[in-house]
Amino acid sequence: MKIAVLGTGTVGRTVAAKLSDLGHDVVVGTRDPQATRARSEPDAMGNPPFPVWHTEHPAVRLASFAEAADQADLVINATGGTGSLDALTQAGAANLTGKILLDISNPLDFSRGFPPSLFVKDTDSLAEQIQRAFPDARVVKSLNTMTAALMVDPARVAGGDHSTFVSGNDEDAKREVVALLGSLGHTDVIDLGDLSTARGAEMLMPVWLRLMGALGTPFFNFKIVR
Amino acid sequence: MKIAVLGTGTVGRTVAAKLSDLGHDVVVGTRDPQATRARSEPDAMGNPPFPVWHTEHPAVRLASFAEAADQADLVINATGGTGSLDALTQAGAANLTGKILLDISNPLDFSRGFPPSLFVKDTDSLAEQIQRAFPDARVVKSLNTMTAALMVDPARVAGGDHSTFVSGNDEDAKREVVALLGSLGHTDVIDLGDLSTARGAEMLMPVWLRLMGALGTPFFNFKIVR
Repeated sequence: MKIAVLGTGTVGRTVAAKLSDLGHDVVVGTRDPQATRARSEPDAMGNPPFPVWHTEHPAVRLASFAEAADQADLVINATGGTGSLDALTQAGAANLTGKILLDISNPLDFSRGFPPSLFVKDTDSLAEQIQRAFPDARVVKSLNTMTAALMVDPARVAGGDHSTFVSGNDEDAKREVVALLGSLGHTDVIDLGDLSTARGAEMLMPVWLRLMGALGTPFFNFKIVR
Repeated sequence: MKIAVLGTGTVGRTVAAKLSDLGHDVVVGTRDPQATRARSEPDAMGNPPFPVWHTEHPAVRLASFAEAADQADLVINATGGTGSLDALTQAGAANLTGKILLDISNPLDFSRGFPPSLFVKDTDSLAEQIQRAFPDARVVKSLNTMTAALMVDPARVAGGDHSTFVSGNDEDAKREVVALLGSLGHTDVIDLGDLSTARGAEMLMPVWLRLMGALGTPFFNFKIVR
């Protein structure tokens, strides 16, 4: 499948690398490809500059948000939540029309330090904001409730014996995302319902962040035991 | 132990009955004991009136919020979240001083129907509101993330193989609550940290409610797989 991964941070890199390894035609979208290619310093999270990562994943192409989305059948929003609507606006509504837009971001506001607050919550969600801004995209929320390494390799914790949520208004789009998740090793995918259920999935972040502190590792996940 | 359970709804009844069965001296607190004893109609949730339940649990006493708290070593807030601060005010700050106040409520606002919204969240929590209102009580948040029947009998789902969270500022109070949880069968109790971590535990409710819809049952729980 032709897949655009929007965002060059840890989440975008991790997802792009794995989907490329699985044989998909992957392009990473960024605001300014020339600037991204010129980076020589670690990013704000301490990750190596994008070119270092890129040399290890030469099959993944780099393009502007708009070029990446234009070429793709499936678009994955892996940008930081505060920048998501702007990145998708640059990708362009026309380039998203009719396409599955898998939103794996979280509405985290770090402007007042740690722990971050949520800039949208409870009576609305980032996924719904995206859907309202791009009504012709088929938005599906998933994967935002675990660390990036587990998104693409759930077996790294307890052999993958934990749960993954999906939310969305388009049943066919959800089915395609569930199939893609299955190809990544997600065995217990729970369909929460329409896109408003993404509010609950996004509101898992605060306890997730506290659990990371209490457990001393991001390598854990929620399992819905029933 | 002398335990006051504030609230006569499903949660209060379930917790009171189990703690009484375990041999604790349990008193249920209510706004107006005479009115509670006179009830003959099912409550708003369709539960039998309190006197019907009470005849099956004669060892549990009924008293006003203040009398119940006054007699207790441990006070459990099992009132609805919207009424919790008022109920605790009636219980009286002096009757809560130095005591463990186990808060198992949720800040759910059903005034606009289902799903409810949270009337406090993200940058504050109901548990913290209670702690600020009663600074001399030793507030511990726990058990709010599962259905009442699982609070007192976690083995009803998967033999109890799931997780329970505690939050609080008083380490001794948390230790006593963890011991009480152990006596109820909770085997994986995770200390999230100080009382501000109750924000995350309370924000689990929205996804819990959607999971109940998706799974068609309240008999499930979160397990933190690591």
